[in-house]
Amino acid sequence: MNSEAACRDQILLILGAWGMPADKAERVAEALVWADLRGVASHGISMLTEYDSRRQGGRINMAAVPAILRQTPVSALVDGDGGMGHPAAHLAMSLAIEKAKANGVGVVVVRNSSHFGALGHYTELAALADLIGIATTSVSGITAAPTGGAAARFGTDPFSFAAPSADGKTFLLDMATTTVARGKVRNRGNENLHCPPGWVLTPEGLPSTDPNAPFNGGFLTSLGGSLEGASYKGYGLAAMVNILSSCLAGSTLITDPMHLKQPWGQDIAHFFMTIDPTLFRESGEFEQSVEIFSNALRATPPADPAVPVQVAGDPERARMEERRTKGIPIAPGLRSKLIAIAAEAGTPWLLY
Amino acid sequence: MNSEAACRDQILLILGAWGMPADKAERVAEALVWADLRGVASHGISMLTEYDSRRQGGRINMAAVPAILRQTPVSALVDGDGGMGHPAAHLAMSLAIEKAKANGVGVVVVRNSSHFGALGHYTELAALADLIGIATTSVSGITAAPTGGAAARFGTDPFSFAAPSADGKTFLLDMATTTVARGKVRNRGNENLHCPPGWVLTPEGLPSTDPNAPFNGGFLTSLGGSLEGASYKGYGLAAMVNILSSCLAGSTLITDPMHLKQPWGQDIAHFFMTIDPTLFRESGEFEQSVEIFSNALRATPPADPAVPVQVAGDPERARMEERRTKGIPIAPGLRSKLIAIAAEAGTPWLLY
Repeated sequence: MNSEAACRDQILLILGAWGMPADKAERVAEALVWADLRGVASHGISMLTEYDSRRQGGRINMAAVPAILRQTPVSALVDGDGGMGHPAAHLAMSLAIEKAKANGVGVVVVRNSSHFGALGHYTELAALADLIGIATTSVSGITAAPTGGAAARFGTDPFSFAAPSADGKTFLLDMATTTVARGKVRNRGNENLHCPPGWVLTPEGLPSTDPNAPFNGGFLTSLGGSLEGASYKGYGLAAMVNILSSCLAGSTLITDPMHLKQPWGQDIAHFFMTIDPTLFRESGEFEQSVEIFSNALRATPPADPAVPVQVAGDPERARMEERRTKGIPIAPGLRSKLIAIAAEAGTPWLLY
Repeated sequence: MNSEAACRDQILLILGAWGMPADKAERVAEALVWADLRGVASHGISMLTEYDSRRQGGRINMAAVPAILRQTPVSALVDGDGGMGHPAAHLAMSLAIEKAKANGVGVVVVRNSSHFGALGHYTELAALADLIGIATTSVSGITAAPTGGAAARFGTDPFSFAAPSADGKTFLLDMATTTVARGKVRNRGNENLHCPPGWVLTPEGLPSTDPNAPFNGGFLTSLGGSLEGASYKGYGLAAMVNILSSCLAGSTLITDPMHLKQPWGQDIAHFFMTIDPTLFRESGEFEQSVEIFSNALRATPPADPAVPVQVAGDPERARMEERRTKGIPIAPGLRSKLIAIAAEAGTPWLLY
C-alpha cells in the first residue's frame, strides 16, 4: 500500500524527468492520485504508461504552457499547447469557477489538449466552490458504433455533473456514454466469461456476447446496449459530448480522418461549465435540497437488503475514506511497468 | 388527417373555453402541434385529456401569469403562477435566448409550473437562434426505481440538448432518462407480447419481462436497464435532471411526500440553458462543424443496409416533412375523448 504523498512524489519525479515544469506536473499528480484514491484505477497512476508511449511517439508537448485565447465575463477559450490535458483542464475549470463566482455562470472550452484524467476531479472542484459543475471531453480511442452502425465512430465520450450537498457528500456523476469500458470487456475475456447481452457488437454491428468482439473488429455499444434498450439515447449523449467539446472548441472531430494525426498534437477538446445556485436560491438552500434529495434516494427500500441504494459519488467516497487510511494498492503487473518507466526516466522508485 | 392550423384552432378554442388568456393559450397550441407534427403523439393534442383532468381537479390555474422573480444579465428565476407550463417555459427560454445573445450565456429556471409539452420544442428555439439549447424538467408521475431499489423515486425525468447545424438540420436530442416510457410497455401488453429484458422491474425490484409489472406495483428502469447494463448511469442522469430543475428552482422534490400536493399547484420545475457558440468560434463555424459531424455519423456503414444510421432529430424531421403535406392523424380512441372535451367546453369540433 502507498500513501497519497508517495504516489504524488513518484509521479512528480517521472514527469520532471520527462521535462514537464513542476507547477504543471503538480496538476497531473493531483488528478491521478484523486482517481486512485477513489478506486478509479483506469484514470490513476496507470495512465503514466499511456502518457509515456504518447510522449515517446512525439504526440505530447511536455513543455506546454496553456494560454487563454479569448474571454468574456462568463466564458473563455483555452489553448492546451499540445500538452498534457491536466494543467489546461485545471486552468479552464479554475476560470469557470472564477467567472461563476463573479457573474453567476462560467463556460470554458479547451482546444489542442490531451487526456486530463477523470472528469469528476474537475467537476468536484466546482462543487467544492459551492457551484454546479459540468464537464465533457473528446477522447482518443475510437471504439463504439452508433446505434444501427457497423463502424466505430465514438470513444467513451464521458460526461460529468457535480452538485454540492450541505453534508459535504457531493453528488458526483462521472460516466462514459458507452455501456461499459473496454477494460470491463477484457476482464470478462480474461476470466473466460461471456459478456451480458448489450455490451458488445460484432464487426457487422450485430449483438454479441463474445468478450473478444471489440478486440477483433467489433465494437462497444452506447449506453442502452441495443435498439430495444434505447441505445440511441447513449449514442445521442455521445454526440452531444463531441459537439460540446470538439465542435465548440474548433478541435479535430473524432470522425475526421485527421483525428489524432494533426501535426500540432492530439487536439483533444474539453468543455467545462459552472453555475452559481445563488442566482436562484438563498445561500445554502440549494445544498440543503441536494442533501435532502440524496438522502431520500439512499433511503429507497433496496431490492437486496444487503445492498443499499447509493447516490452518484457514494461508492468512490467510501473507497476514498478507506484508502486515506489504508493507502493505495498498485497491482503487480502495473508495478513492473511503472518500475521500468521510472528506471528509464532515471528516477528513484518510491512505491510498493 | 388534419392541418396544423386546424389542430391549433381546436386547441385554442378549448383552452379559451377553459378560461386561458389567448396569448398564453397560443403557447400551449404551438407546443402541442409541434409534437404532433413530429410524430411525438404522447406530447401532442392527446395531452388535452390530461390537462382537462388536472384542471377539473383544481391543480392548474388557467388564468396564470408567469412572472420574473429575479434576474441578472445571464440568468432569471421565473414563477409559473401554478399555471400550464407552456407559457412559463416559453418565457423562460425566450429570456435565456435574449441573455445569451447579449452576454453569451443564459440560465433560466422555473418554479411553480406544470407540464409544458415536449422539451425539444424549447431547445429547438435556441438552435433556431444559432445557440446551443439545454432543457430539463421535473415530472408528475413517479414510475422508475433507482438502480438496486424496490420503490419508485423517479419519473421519466427528461433531458434535451439542441445544436444548430449549417444545413438547418438541428441536432435535437430529447430523451427520457428511463429506458422506455410507460406507453411503450403498455403497448406490449396490449399485443400480448413480453417486454425485452431491461425495461421493467417487479414490485420487489427484480428484473422482469412482464408488461403488466409497472401497472401492478412494479417499476420502469433507468436507461441501461439493469446493473450489468449500467442503469446507474441513467439513474444518475435522472437525479441530475431533478437537481437542475427542482433543487435549483426551489420546487417540491419528486421524493417529497408533498409532491403534487402543495396547495399552490403541481410545483413542477424546469431548467433552460443557452450558450452562444461565437464565444469560442467565428460566426457560422460551429454550425459548419455540427453539419460535418452529423453527416459523418449518417455516413456510418449500417448494420442493416436498409436502415441508415440517423442523428438525433432526423426521424422527427422526416415525420414533420411528411405531415406538413399530408396532415396530422388523430387515432379514433383519442378523437372520441377530444370530441367529448370540446362538447363539455361548449366549443365546435373542427378535426377529423
